[in-house]
Amino acid sequence: MIYFDNAATTFPKPNIVYEKHIEAMKDYGANPGRAGHKMALKANRGIYETRNLIGKLFNIKNPMDIVFTFNCTESLNLGIKGLLKPGDHVITTSMEHNSVLRPIKHLEERGVENTIVLTNSKGEIDPKKIEKSIRENTKLIVTTHVSNLTGTIMPIEEIGQIAKKHNIPYMVDAAQSAGVYDIDVEKMNISLLAFPGHKGLLGPQATGGLYIKEGLQIEAIFQGGTGSASESLTQPEMLPDKYESGTHNGPGIVGLGAGIEYILEKGMKNIREHEEVLTAHFLKGIETIEGIKVYGPLDIKKQGAVVSLNLKDIDSSEIAYILDEEYDIATRSGLHCAPLAHKTIGTLEQGVVRFSFGIFNTKEEVDKAINALKEIAREV
Amino acid sequence: MIYFDNAATTFPKPNIVYEKHIEAMKDYGANPGRAGHKMALKANRGIYETRNLIGKLFNIKNPMDIVFTFNCTESLNLGIKGLLKPGDHVITTSMEHNSVLRPIKHLEERGVENTIVLTNSKGEIDPKKIEKSIRENTKLIVTTHVSNLTGTIMPIEEIGQIAKKHNIPYMVDAAQSAGVYDIDVEKMNISLLAFPGHKGLLGPQATGGLYIKEGLQIEAIFQGGTGSASESLTQPEMLPDKYESGTHNGPGIVGLGAGIEYILEKGMKNIREHEEVLTAHFLKGIETIEGIKVYGPLDIKKQGAVVSLNLKDIDSSEIAYILDEEYDIATRSGLHCAPLAHKTIGTLEQGVVRFSFGIFNTKEEVDKAINALKEIAREV
Repeated sequence: MIYFDNAATTFPKPNIVYEKHIEAMKDYGANPGRAGHKMALKANRGIYETRNLIGKLFNIKNPMDIVFTFNCTESLNLGIKGLLKPGDHVITTSMEHNSVLRPIKHLEERGVENTIVLTNSKGEIDPKKIEKSIRENTKLIVTTHVSNLTGTIMPIEEIGQIAKKHNIPYMVDAAQSAGVYDIDVEKMNISLLAFPGHKGLLGPQATGGLYIKEGLQIEAIFQGGTGSASESLTQPEMLPDKYESGTHNGPGIVGLGAGIEYILEKGMKNIREHEEVLTAHFLKGIETIEGIKVYGPLDIKKQGAVVSLNLKDIDSSEIAYILDEEYDIATRSGLHCAPLAHKTIGTLEQGVVRFSFGIFNTKEEVDKAINALKEIAREV
Repeated sequence: MIYFDNAATTFPKPNIVYEKHIEAMKDYGANPGRAGHKMALKANRGIYETRNLIGKLFNIKNPMDIVFTFNCTESLNLGIKGLLKPGDHVITTSMEHNSVLRPIKHLEERGVENTIVLTNSKGEIDPKKIEKSIRENTKLIVTTHVSNLTGTIMPIEEIGQIAKKHNIPYMVDAAQSAGVYDIDVEKMNISLLAFPGHKGLLGPQATGGLYIKEGLQIEAIFQGGTGSASESLTQPEMLPDKYESGTHNGPGIVGLGAGIEYILEKGMKNIREHEEVLTAHFLKGIETIEGIKVYGPLDIKKQGAVVSLNLKDIDSSEIAYILDEEYDIATRSGLHCAPLAHKTIGTLEQGVVRFSFGIFNTKEEVDKAINALKEIAREV
C-alpha cells in the first residue's frame, strides 16, 4: 500500500517510536506523576524528557508552559474556549479546520464575536486584512500554519508581528506544520501553540500539546486528580498540572519523545526538503493530465506537502475509491473537516482528493500515483 | 518488582493487549473514521469492535451511546459539566475522587448547588441519606462504585433504584470497578457510566469512555472535526460523533478491546475471586502486626482489591518509600486525590499506604508484602 494520507496521521512511524512506546508500556507502564515508587518515577521522567524536547523544538524557555493533551483538537478547544469570554472578539481565517471554526461558532452562541477573514482562492491570507479586522475587544487571533486542504503556508511571523503590535495573543494551529516547519514561539510572537503528536512529530496517536505563554489566563477544561495539591477540592493553579487532570498517556508521550528525537537527528530541514521534492515532483507530473484541477499555491515554497485535486467533475470520493481499490493508494477525499476552506477554493460540492506526503514516502511511490491518475483520467 | 499500584493503572497488561496495540500501530495506524481507504476503514472497524465489546460488558443496548474519551477524568467532566446548569443541584458522597469533586466544586462557583453526603468511617454510604438529600432541583446523583482509597463497594443498585424512583439521572464512576465488578446499566438504572480503559479493563493508557443514556442532554466539551457533517460549522448532534472530536486513540482502543476480550475469556467472576483471595489473604496476614491501622470495611464482600493502612503514626510516604527501596514493592502513599475520603477515614494528615491488587498478582507476592510490613513494624 502507498500511504498518502499523512495529513490525517503520519504512517508509518519511525521504528524507534514503536519500540520506545511499547517499552514504556511493558517496562514502566505505571501511572506517572502519582505514586513515588521507582516505576512511577521512571514513567514521570519519560514525560519530563518529552516536554523538554518539545521546548527545544519550539524555543519554549520553560517546558512547564507546555501542557500535554490527547490531540490537537483538545489543544485548540482549551486555548480558544479557555481564553475567550462573552463580549470578546476573535479573528480567524476561512482556511481553518473545524477544530478551530466549530469552537469559535460554539462561542458565538455564547456572546463571543468573530471575524473570519477570507483568503484568496489559493488559500493565501493578506495579513493586512487581519490587522484591519482588529477591534477594541479583539482578544485573540488564531490561524493555521499550514492548511490541511491546500497546504498553503500562512505568514505566521507577519501575523505574529501584527498581534504583538496590538498586544493581542496569537494562537497558531500547527496541526500540519509541527515537526516539519520552523516554529519559534519567541521570534514569531506565538502566545498559544496547538500541536498534535501523531502527525509531523511522528508520535503515537492520543498525544498532543498546547504551549501557553506565561501569564496568559486560560481556564481549564477539566478538573480532576492532578497528583498535586491533593488536599484541595479546587484545581491547582500551577502549570502544567492545572490543565493535566487524570491519567496521562505516559507510553504515548514517551513514543512522541522518540519521534521528536528522530526529527532532531534527521534534521527538520532535511525532512522538509524531502517532502518538498516529492510535492514538486507530483505537481510537475500531474500538471498535463487532461481534466485535472489542482488547488492551492502550486509552489513548494508556498505550500506544505499537501496537494488537493479533482479529475473533471467526478466526485472526489469516486477517484479516491479507484485509487484505493485498483492502485492501493491511500488518499483522502471529501471535505477534510474544513468547509470554509472548500468554499474558498470552490470545492464544497465536489470535495477534493487530497494527497499528503510524509518522510517515508518515495519518488517511486509518487510516480505510481502520477501514472494512476493518468490512467484514471483516460478512463473516466 | 512487586506491583501493588493497580488502582492507579493495572500493570502489566495481558500480552495480547501489547500485541494488538502495537499491531494496530504498525499494520493499520491510519486515522480512523476519516478517509475511506482500506487502512482507515480497518482502523475504524477496530474501534467499532471495542465499542461493541463494551456494550456487551455493561449491557448497553446501543453501542453508539458509548463515547470514547482519553481517561475517566474526561468522562466524568463530560457527564457532570455537560449535564448540570446553573440552578441545578447535584448529590454526591464524601468518598469521591477529585475527578468528581473538583468538577462539582468548579460548578459551585457557577451556580450549581451540591450536597456531599457523608459516609461512615469505613466509607460506607447509607442510600437513605442520598434519598433525603434530593431536592426539587436535583438533576444528578453521582457516586463511585468502588472507593479508590478504602475499596468500599457502594450499593449502586440501591442508589440506582432511588434515582429511578425520583426520575433523576444516576452517574457511576466505575474507575475502580469496571472489568472486575458486574455493571449492568439497565438493571442498575445507570444513566451515565464513566470508566477508564487502563485499569480493570486492562487496556492501554489514554483510553476511557462514557455511556450516555439515550435522550439525556449532555453538552459536548469539545467541538472539532468529526469526519461527519463536515460541511457544517456546528457540531453534529449524532452520537458518538458529537462527543468525539479530533483524532481517536485508534491503536489504544484496539488494545482496550483485547483487554476486554481477555476478561470475557477469563471470566470476570474468576478475576474478582482471584483478587478477593489476595485481599483476604493480605487482610488476614497483617491484622496482628503491632501498630498497624487498616482502613475500610475489612471484608472482601464489601470491598474491592484495595487495602489502605498505616504503621503507627509514621508518615505514609515514609513507609511507601521503605517498601519501594528495600523490598521493591510498589504502593501509593499520600492522599490519592481523594481529600474528603481521607477526612472521612481520619487520615488527611498522615495519608495512607495503599496496596491495590490485580489479576497478575500472586499469593507469594502478598506474602512478601506481609513479611515486609512485619519487619518494618519491628524497626520503626
